[in-house]
Amino acid sequence: MEEQNHIASAFDRDLEAVQAQIMKMGGLVEDAIRLAAKSLETRDEPLAEQVRAADTAIDVLEAEINEKAARIIALRAPTAVDLRMILSVMKISGNLERIGDYAKNMAKRTSVLSQMPPVNDSTGAIRRMARLAEEMLKDALDAYIRRDADLAADIIARDEELDQMYNALFREFLTFMMEDPRNITACMHLHFIAKNVERMGDHCTSMAEQVTYLVTGAHPDEARPKADQTSLNPRG
Amino acid sequence: MEEQNHIASAFDRDLEAVQAQIMKMGGLVEDAIRLAAKSLETRDEPLAEQVRAADTAIDVLEAEINEKAARIIALRAPTAVDLRMILSVMKISGNLERIGDYAKNMAKRTSVLSQMPPVNDSTGAIRRMARLAEEMLKDALDAYIRRDADLAADIIARDEELDQMYNALFREFLTFMMEDPRNITACMHLHFIAKNVERMGDHCTSMAEQVTYLVTGAHPDEARPKADQTSLNPRG
Repeated sequence: MEEQNHIASAFDRDLEAVQAQIMKMGGLVEDAIRLAAKSLETRDEPLAEQVRAADTAIDVLEAEINEKAARIIALRAPTAVDLRMILSVMKISGNLERIGDYAKNMAKRTSVLSQMPPVNDSTGAIRRMARLAEEMLKDALDAYIRRDADLAADIIARDEELDQMYNALFREFLTFMMEDPRNITACMHLHFIAKNVERMGDHCTSMAEQVTYLVTGAHPDEARPKADQTSLNPRG
Repeated sequence: MEEQNHIASAFDRDLEAVQAQIMKMGGLVEDAIRLAAKSLETRDEPLAEQVRAADTAIDVLEAEINEKAARIIALRAPTAVDLRMILSVMKISGNLERIGDYAKNMAKRTSVLSQMPPVNDSTGAIRRMARLAEEMLKDALDAYIRRDADLAADIIARDEELDQMYNALFREFLTFMMEDPRNITACMHLHFIAKNVERMGDHCTSMAEQVTYLVTGAHPDEARPKADQTSLNPRG
């Protein structure tokens, strides 16, 4: 503790470096969401293949970020707020990796769906859902870097909109399937994709909750037991 | 490095303590899988509610394990193999948390499906899938504790069986829906659940891959770029 200022600034530089990697990873994931939705709508298989291939780079970045964060913890032995910040790096890289996976899974279905007749404007509706998810992600990354609790609260609110879009689409798929059984297989795949986009929103919400936690020290979800929050305080 | 033996044994004690928590978490997740499948098959809503409630305990354990692992890294500054072992604790707790989430999501659908006519033996088929996933999980935890690469390889092979069960069930759902449109809504939910169980298997595979990595130092998936593996070696 004698070298508090020196240690703090070295820690801050380390944290900034690993946060820069988070932003790079976030940019790749934003691209993956947008291009996966585009490949689905335009039935562009080479583009879908590009999205699937790009997921490897996202996974590699996650591994690098986690190792870098572990090295920072080992080197700087941060406590309290600093430890909370470096652990949030690991959490957020995990969220980004999962969103990237969903985009990859979406792109995987492009080739299957390209061989089936289109189901109304379903892929357009999914693209609109994906655009909302992409904006939520962009804002979640901004909120994270700027430690902006207001923006984080806004993202959490927007997730309900995405859920409603998903629910509306789910009911539409049921209708299309009942109207014409030839739609069933395509709708099963489309439903799967819509659910994946809805889950992207859940991960953006989880990122926003991390931001709230960093800024206020409290999780937005008050229903959670306090044990896992207070235990971040240094013991003894 | 002068105190290598002293440091190593203190680290080993810390690692053992956090691994014991992993086993406790694993036990809760095994229960969640089994009881979620049972609640679905027997239409037991109170049991489903119990599974949903138990997920909070799993989430709390994950947070505790990750914080404990971070403290061990901060305190012991492990490198090379030790760092790899402590990072695997975080990876595996993440896999367990996700499997627990899938079980919770499964239990959430019990109340919806209880209000619909049963679709053949679908919930029985899902219970059989869930039993396979539960056995994979149990073995993945054993393989992890015993650092058993052979058992890990066996788990990875069994995941194909689970994938095949899912694919067969997917085709069955398509048939049921085409035969009778009144099955469509229930089949949409059942498909969702089957997919979640299939994903549990993916996470057991990921755990088994972590074991292989701990034992051999190489990821089973040779297609992955080497960068994220070799970077675990201490630099300088």
